[in-house]
Amino acid sequence: MSVNAPALFASRWVELPPYVRELGGGLPAGFRAAGVTAGIKPSGARDLGLLVCDAPETVSAARFTRSAAAAAPVLLCRERCELHRLRAIVANAGNANAATGGRGLDAAAKTQGAGAVVAGVAPAQVAVASTGVIGVQLPVDELVRALPRAAGELRPDGDADLAAAIRTTDRYEKRTALEVELPAGTVRLSAQAKGGGMISPAFATLFCFVQTDAALTAETADALLGATVRHSLERISVDGQLSTNDVAILMASGASDVRVAPGSEDEQLLSEAMHQLMRALALAIVRDGEGARRVGRVIVRGGDADGVERVARAVGDSPLVKTALHGGDPNWGRIAQAVGMALGDGAPVAFDVAIEGVAVCAAGAALPFGRADLERAVAGEEVEYQVTLPGSGAEAELFFSDLSHEYVSINAEYTT
Amino acid sequence: MSVNAPALFASRWVELPPYVRELGGGLPAGFRAAGVTAGIKPSGARDLGLLVCDAPETVSAARFTRSAAAAAPVLLCRERCELHRLRAIVANAGNANAATGGRGLDAAAKTQGAGAVVAGVAPAQVAVASTGVIGVQLPVDELVRALPRAAGELRPDGDADLAAAIRTTDRYEKRTALEVELPAGTVRLSAQAKGGGMISPAFATLFCFVQTDAALTAETADALLGATVRHSLERISVDGQLSTNDVAILMASGASDVRVAPGSEDEQLLSEAMHQLMRALALAIVRDGEGARRVGRVIVRGGDADGVERVARAVGDSPLVKTALHGGDPNWGRIAQAVGMALGDGAPVAFDVAIEGVAVCAAGAALPFGRADLERAVAGEEVEYQVTLPGSGAEAELFFSDLSHEYVSINAEYTT
Repeated sequence: MSVNAPALFASRWVELPPYVRELGGGLPAGFRAAGVTAGIKPSGARDLGLLVCDAPETVSAARFTRSAAAAAPVLLCRERCELHRLRAIVANAGNANAATGGRGLDAAAKTQGAGAVVAGVAPAQVAVASTGVIGVQLPVDELVRALPRAAGELRPDGDADLAAAIRTTDRYEKRTALEVELPAGTVRLSAQAKGGGMISPAFATLFCFVQTDAALTAETADALLGATVRHSLERISVDGQLSTNDVAILMASGASDVRVAPGSEDEQLLSEAMHQLMRALALAIVRDGEGARRVGRVIVRGGDADGVERVARAVGDSPLVKTALHGGDPNWGRIAQAVGMALGDGAPVAFDVAIEGVAVCAAGAALPFGRADLERAVAGEEVEYQVTLPGSGAEAELFFSDLSHEYVSINAEYTT
Repeated sequence: MSVNAPALFASRWVELPPYVRELGGGLPAGFRAAGVTAGIKPSGARDLGLLVCDAPETVSAARFTRSAAAAAPVLLCRERCELHRLRAIVANAGNANAATGGRGLDAAAKTQGAGAVVAGVAPAQVAVASTGVIGVQLPVDELVRALPRAAGELRPDGDADLAAAIRTTDRYEKRTALEVELPAGTVRLSAQAKGGGMISPAFATLFCFVQTDAALTAETADALLGATVRHSLERISVDGQLSTNDVAILMASGASDVRVAPGSEDEQLLSEAMHQLMRALALAIVRDGEGARRVGRVIVRGGDADGVERVARAVGDSPLVKTALHGGDPNWGRIAQAVGMALGDGAPVAFDVAIEGVAVCAAGAALPFGRADLERAVAGEEVEYQVTLPGSGAEAELFFSDLSHEYVSINAEYTT
């Protein structure tokens, strides 16, 4: 259910290209999806999603978490899937199947086998994905029992149910459907994602499933997913915590008969559309971070690639910056502290800070500024911080959520 | 004022050696201190502390933050003090004099000059230290005006007023006075510290002022401070945020006429006493971290030095682990997640986890355990987590506070 879901492309930080149109929902040609209740979530809400592509020549690409405690479904996908030609995804919420050892791997394999039967494809063409509590064995019997029911409910407009089934602490669903007019013809793009907490992706992220009916080569699919993930899902943080279960999968059915040739203008335009799509989803995940009320964007320029990255992460993951963002407090001293920590080897660094375009610090020292103006600027839903380091050339951005009482409540009072 | 201050040596993680006795307070021979109201804190509470050593042959050592945005008083101390023979400390709370540029350096220099006059020593023998809000110019005129008044109130038992004057968001003062029976004779040790938030020291920390009337060489003082800081103040985290203003200073007056010779048994025993003293203060800072209710200790064994350090920091700084600690939730999956993140390059690592001696995870996979027993174990004020990595030899510990609603309130609703 969409509970006050903000419009996905409403942010000033994303822009729908003129050749792209938002649709109300629905999957691209060749895809069907479903979401049912398997009984994994104690709430009784939908918790098992199934996505199937009926086109035999489906092309795909995937990215997974870099965690050294990667969950069983991630290990299974990496080792036992043909990631360039996936035909189905079985995804559950309510249990992460992480830190579950050999029994967890066995449960993931059973899920993959059952998924292959109901989707009518080879096991290696079925990706499995789990999210929820860590360290508890997956109730795989219930899951397997529910899969034929999910298969029976597969529909071209099943994306809403799929998006609902993968939610954990998400307050609202994250999905979109786009129509993209390319020179070669019109194709569709759709995507479903889930966020919550434990969000600080470092390769792929959380769940993000993307479909298109464009005909892509496997190389194009992989390059598209890699580039767009790098500029979207890898640029967000809710709580700086790399998950055990992150996965992003792009599947292309080719069912539109629109061929997107490598190096073509079609590829470039599709790439731009997918960039904005992924950015919008990434922002939605931040906006709906556990307990989040406001979204910050920090842009760090100057220095070198390593330095700007470290500063952006230090600012975006600082509980002091995040609580100030939450409280609408233009306390830029905490930005200075984070910069100092990130670059800390004792030697002073002359950095500039601006908040919503108002310069508050130059060469490491306070500037006079109109406090009332700045307080108004940080009272909005989106706040932009700019940090400039000595030197030039490098740039990093990070989108991050605030830190609220609700984050503490969600994570202190419930086992998630 | 001591508001429900827990006994400093009550924790099972510190131990007062049998030759050490706690005193009610007071400074070692040769030292006098005071704490007055200069008008820097809006609350009107004491905010200016002065510590003076009357012994001309005083020996000292100091450690400072590694931040690249180090505050003006830190820069001044590093560049303009004779750190091995400090005779006085001027410390204020309510304003950090950080990110204040040339004007801030000028204010720190004025403070040092005024301190030298009232203490009757050379400026290079006066350390200055500031804590409080960042990016606001220090009201140095008020501070300088109040210094003679502070000097007029210097007393051998002024340590309580000094400890009060350096508090910011600390709920209770952190100070102690010890009597140490060495073979060479009896000496005294005292210390005052302040914590709050922005606590994740990486060289020295926060404020920690330590005094002794033992006669030490400058080399012994430096080695003692370095070693004890490394095993105490550098092993704690409230919010993972390296401060701009951390400072630890040890001063030895020699007024007891008890000479602690390098390499002697006296040195070894004094070192052990000071280790426990510093550990107790470090723990008190964690226990009184902003909004803190519980203290966690994580011990990581195995692997290599870099790995155990990264895992200990990842666990102790994880908002998910900290909220679970707050809620008394034995959710060890979040420990697994933090381990996976810290060691993350995608290759699985077989690690063990135990909470309060109960093994919950072996070789990366869940073990059966009595949930009720574990829930009781994590309901206490101190919770111990053990992580074992493959390999052997390395060990790292970290003490950390929980993450509570109060932390959010303190940092979202006030400019600190």
